[in-house]
Amino acid sequence: MNRGELEYIRWIRQVLGDGNALIGAKSANPTTTRRAKPSNRRHGVLVDVGDDAAVLLSPARELVVTTDMLLEGVHFDLSACSLKQIGRKAMNVNLSDIAAMAAIPRYAVVAAGLPPHLPPDGAEELFLGLVEAAAEFDAVVVGGDTNQSKHGLAVSVTLLGETTPMGPVLRSGARPGDALCVTGRLGFSLQGRHLTFRPRVREALVLHERHGLHAMLDVSDGLGADLFHLVEESGCGAILDAASIPIAARPPASSDDGRTDLDHALNDGEDFELLFAVDPAEASRLELEQPFGAQGLRASRIGDVVEERGVWIRSGTSVAPLTRGGYQHAL
Amino acid sequence: MNRGELEYIRWIRQVLGDGNALIGAKSANPTTTRRAKPSNRRHGVLVDVGDDAAVLLSPARELVVTTDMLLEGVHFDLSACSLKQIGRKAMNVNLSDIAAMAAIPRYAVVAAGLPPHLPPDGAEELFLGLVEAAAEFDAVVVGGDTNQSKHGLAVSVTLLGETTPMGPVLRSGARPGDALCVTGRLGFSLQGRHLTFRPRVREALVLHERHGLHAMLDVSDGLGADLFHLVEESGCGAILDAASIPIAARPPASSDDGRTDLDHALNDGEDFELLFAVDPAEASRLELEQPFGAQGLRASRIGDVVEERGVWIRSGTSVAPLTRGGYQHAL
Repeated sequence: MNRGELEYIRWIRQVLGDGNALIGAKSANPTTTRRAKPSNRRHGVLVDVGDDAAVLLSPARELVVTTDMLLEGVHFDLSACSLKQIGRKAMNVNLSDIAAMAAIPRYAVVAAGLPPHLPPDGAEELFLGLVEAAAEFDAVVVGGDTNQSKHGLAVSVTLLGETTPMGPVLRSGARPGDALCVTGRLGFSLQGRHLTFRPRVREALVLHERHGLHAMLDVSDGLGADLFHLVEESGCGAILDAASIPIAARPPASSDDGRTDLDHALNDGEDFELLFAVDPAEASRLELEQPFGAQGLRASRIGDVVEERGVWIRSGTSVAPLTRGGYQHAL
Repeated sequence: MNRGELEYIRWIRQVLGDGNALIGAKSANPTTTRRAKPSNRRHGVLVDVGDDAAVLLSPARELVVTTDMLLEGVHFDLSACSLKQIGRKAMNVNLSDIAAMAAIPRYAVVAAGLPPHLPPDGAEELFLGLVEAAAEFDAVVVGGDTNQSKHGLAVSVTLLGETTPMGPVLRSGARPGDALCVTGRLGFSLQGRHLTFRPRVREALVLHERHGLHAMLDVSDGLGADLFHLVEESGCGAILDAASIPIAARPPASSDDGRTDLDHALNDGEDFELLFAVDPAEASRLELEQPFGAQGLRASRIGDVVEERGVWIRSGTSVAPLTRGGYQHAL
């Protein structure tokens, strides 16, 4: 650890102390063990940034853990977005994974490799984006590791959550006869939405609580890739209904790219919407009730789970095998 | 995710299934939810690699979480070590942090950025090193994220552990009058030991169980830097006894570097030994009993905690302020 890193960590401790009430003030009695502030203990954090590890109250139910790394030149371009956006995205992709389990996000740790070419206050902006995105879902950053990077910026977040009394929703629980549904609209995320999307944490909890989901994942590689993941883990297949797939509005930048809107919806990736399998009667109820009404977000039934392995797409009266989509990175 | 990443993940699932009994065989009944193998459930792993997140039994006691990232060109040089060594080191630095809390390591997740210049099977060797190092302390890799990197290799590990009935040992619990002790020998780690060190997980548990430690950290930045961290967190000071500091044998490569052995012991860093504060009577008992006898590892009393803030070093009859050490990276 060098002086710059020490100063950065000092700044982080101050921010967490002020902004998120994470860090305990130094005890007046130096022999008292320093632990997290009472306001932070409300979150179950006993020891946070500044020790060798964070100490946390164990969740009462099952523990859910996910990790995702963002790399400069692969997931983002420093000339095309702010450090705060990168911080938010690094946290939000992890929140989206916890959402995909229908679990509750709780604690995050962050490891970063900071290159010399970051703009002034870039490291601070990055951290503020991480903390801010976590706070929107009542999750707290409890520790981390900062390093100088000789190459590009690297940000790795690990997010811990806990299951609800309904238990987690896995990828592997889809059954023939289930309806397939998605939240929101798919496609064209790489023109900007991939930096500003809102992880479907609350929606996942509502869906599982009200409709008892059988299987779920978040669409990160594109519907045309992730649906394969879901049915392969479940040991079955699926038929998509092309006309039912909700497609995002085509941005002006994509006006003449020679690809159909459906192609974008299937293959762009980074939508971070939920794809789930549910009992068909529940899917009908969901389509009618639309429990996210106030936010303008809709759930759409887009196909069916079938016994035969594979993925097909129905367009009008024809049904054809779907070509497995490849993930297009943000750059 | 591209095809290469998919293949790598398939390979990882196979390795974990064979080598660590982590991954369940596909259920004969495709409608059955796939969960981890019974042999892995013994470790508390309910769902592992292949879903959006791992699902784990919550520890009965407090949860301990740490994260550490290793970067090419900063922490290692691909021409000077094997990918397996890098994998082992990436896990071992995290195990060392869990040891520093006197906690029990349990679950790890790994995020990696893999550059095109890795040697053939480099990604596989990296992963085997990670899994092997974790297994030596009965910890299991339960999930991860692999990415292509346009720049250097980046490996980020997050390790979860749990406290013992004795509770965690923090940096902040040192009290004036405590004895300061270390395990092993310090200095010259960067000539090779930083890649092959053994994290002091079991030693930390033995020490805390037998002697009720007051404060602890692992020496990663060097004794001359980390001791400052310990006393600052504890709101007190320390006096080191120069003659008592156990120094590693000087490797031939360092024969004429113009630095004293003591300078190396104070400032090299990456020793990954334990530095701890304990009741002086317990320190005496520890020095006599040497509970790690069978492994040839010794614990040494190297100084005292004092009320006045600062760090001093005693050499013969003179006591001088210690210059705060700066971390020397492995490269």
